[in-house]
Formats: sequence, C-alpha cells, structure tokens
Amino acid sequence: MTDTAVDVRTPASRRGAGRREAICEAVFELLAEVGYDRMTMDHVAERAHASKATIYRTWADKPEMVVDAIVQHFGEEPPPVDTGSLRGDLLDLMDRACTAANRADGDVITGLITAAGHTPALATAMQRTILESKAFLFQTIVARAVARGELPQGTDAATLQEVMHAMIVSRKTWQCGPMSDEFAVHVVDDVLLPVLKRPSS
Amino acid sequence: MTDTAVDVRTPASRRGAGRREAICEAVFELLAEVGYDRMTMDHVAERAHASKATIYRTWADKPEMVVDAIVQHFGEEPPPVDTGSLRGDLLDLMDRACTAANRADGDVITGLITAAGHTPALATAMQRTILESKAFLFQTIVARAVARGELPQGTDAATLQEVMHAMIVSRKTWQCGPMSDEFAVHVVDDVLLPVLKRPSS
Repeated sequence: MTDTAVDVRTPASRRGAGRREAICEAVFELLAEVGYDRMTMDHVAERAHASKATIYRTWADKPEMVVDAIVQHFGEEPPPVDTGSLRGDLLDLMDRACTAANRADGDVITGLITAAGHTPALATAMQRTILESKAFLFQTIVARAVARGELPQGTDAATLQEVMHAMIVSRKTWQCGPMSDEFAVHVVDDVLLPVLKRPSS
Repeated sequence: MTDTAVDVRTPASRRGAGRREAICEAVFELLAEVGYDRMTMDHVAERAHASKATIYRTWADKPEMVVDAIVQHFGEEPPPVDTGSLRGDLLDLMDRACTAANRADGDVITGLITAAGHTPALATAMQRTILESKAFLFQTIVARAVARGELPQGTDAATLQEVMHAMIVSRKTWQCGPMSDEFAVHVVDDVLLPVLKRPSS
C-alpha cells in the first residue's frame, strides 16, 4: 500500500493480501531455518496456518512463491546516511549490512545460494532484489564523496558494491568470523578505501 | 599414495581404497549436480555401484562421507607459478581459481554452501580444505613480491586471500558473470593490487 489515506480494496482482497504476507513471512522464516531445498510446501502451509490449496491459488510452484517472499522482504531500502565523510558513510553502510547479515536475512541468503545454482528464477530474483536494487546506495555515497572532493569524478560505484557485497557474503556463508565492528573497519580501511582511491588506469 | 615404488597394501585393502575413492567421486559429482541437501545415500549408492551397507561400513553418516569427499578432492594444491612479477603471479593464480570455479569444483562449492550453514562439520571441512590449506599460495606470492622489492616487508597475505576468495566465490554463487580473463584482470588491477599496495596504517 503506497496510498495510506484510503484503502480502496474490498474486505476480501484485504484478507487475501494479509494471507499472502503471512505466507511470505513463513517462507522467509523457513528459508532461514532449513534452506530452500529442504523446505516443503507442507512446511509452509503448517507454519502459515494456511491450506496448500490456498498457497497454490496464489503461486504456481515453490520457486514462484519464494521469489515473491524475497521481493517482499528485501524490496525496500532507505537511502544511505550522510555522515559528512566517505569513511563515515562506508562504515555506516557496512554496519547496516552486517546487522542484516547477523539477522535472519543472512541465514535466508545462505539458505538460497545452493538452490539458486539450479533454479535460474531464484538467481535472477536475488540479483534483482539484493544487488541491483541496492546500487543507488553505492552511487549516492560515491556522488557525495565526489562532491566533497574526497574522490575524483568518474569513480566507479559498481566495483565498490561488488567488493563490499563479496566481502560480506563470503564472510557470512563461509562462517569466517563475526560480522563485527572490527570486521566493518577492516573492510572499509583495508579494502574499500584503497579500491576507491586507487590511481585510475 | 605418495610412495609410487611399492604398494605394500594387501589386495583387499587396495580394493577397499579403490571403492572408497569411487564413492567419493560419486559424492563429488552429485554435490555438483543437485547439492548436498537433495543428495541421498541412495543416489550415492546407485552412482558408485556400491551397496548402502558398504557405504555405512566406511562412514557413519552423510556429513562424514561428504567431508571425506571434499578432503580427497580439494586436498592437494601445486605451488604457485613464479612469473617474475607480482601482477603476473596474481593473474596466474586468478586463472587457476577461475578455471576451477568453471569446472565441477565451483558447482560443488555452490552445492555445499547452504548445507554448511546448518552442518558445522561441513563448514569446518570447507574452511580447512579450501581456505586454510591454500594460505601458502598467497604467502608465497607475497614473499616473492617482497623479495623483488614490489611490496614492503610485512605485507598482509591473509587479506589478499580473503579478498580474492570473496571475489571469486561471490561471482560464482551469485552468477554475476563469467569467470573470464576479463574478470581476472579486473580483480587483479582494480582490487587486489590496490589492496596490497595501500599505504600501511
């Protein structure tokens, strides 16, 4: 609902939307707990207190249902905080990403990666909702740093996103250590800033 | 067998070792094809032409069997090529890693990541065989570059490994593009060299 003033839907369609959200929430919980390949439609029906008939009226199959749950959960992202410096902005974004990785979000992503290898629709949904839709965060941070004179014109925000995403996902999925403040400082100071400030080729 | 001169094992133990290797190979193939969570002991028995009784005489359960298959497959790594320059050494190592990621090795890792999230023995085996046992590659490359005067004493090989591993695994598991020569050059020039040559803190 983008229009908060008047809900023009019928009571039945409001109930339908509520049920759909409840099912997506159940899917999200189960993805975090057991992963995509071990999650069955029976699990989802039980967790959401819904019949399988209801589920299959809304989604044709498990990939379609999971894609919807991912889009619903990862869809919105507030703009990055302007802390007044590039390093501050990067630390704030790392803090936000590490907090999410420590919550169920991180376990959901771990639960999806193997399945995405054999389910193209899942891989596409993950790229769209967890990578492409976050690109503006990195573009905004780089644009601010350019405006402040901290980075040269034309600095590549795509590589910044690629490297930050890789560092966080790798640490999380390989369980290489906590997503701590210390890790965030390491990534920003030892990796992201050197990459951003490299002499242009 | 490291001793190629004389095989001192009995014929029965040779047959046992051969069967064990055949089963590990079947496990490896199935991990690449369907992933850990969808692979059953029945699949393994069928693929390896072995009885489930034989499998359970060797391994107590699925995690133990898979750990053995991973250790057998990823266990040995030749030393890095000395190309005469840091950039050449890094490109050669990237080429080696990308070639492996393009083969079944990459699909096996994708097939394991979700399961490693809920099976600590798997996560430990992956860290040991795919991270810790490769550390010497990065230490060797950094030591050579220090000896050549390309990097300062005390340059951190652990961060180099952390970043290269993250970039390759992220690209592979998120299916962000081919593991191509172009990708290898991008990672070396835009990420690894700036990280290695950063002003020390």
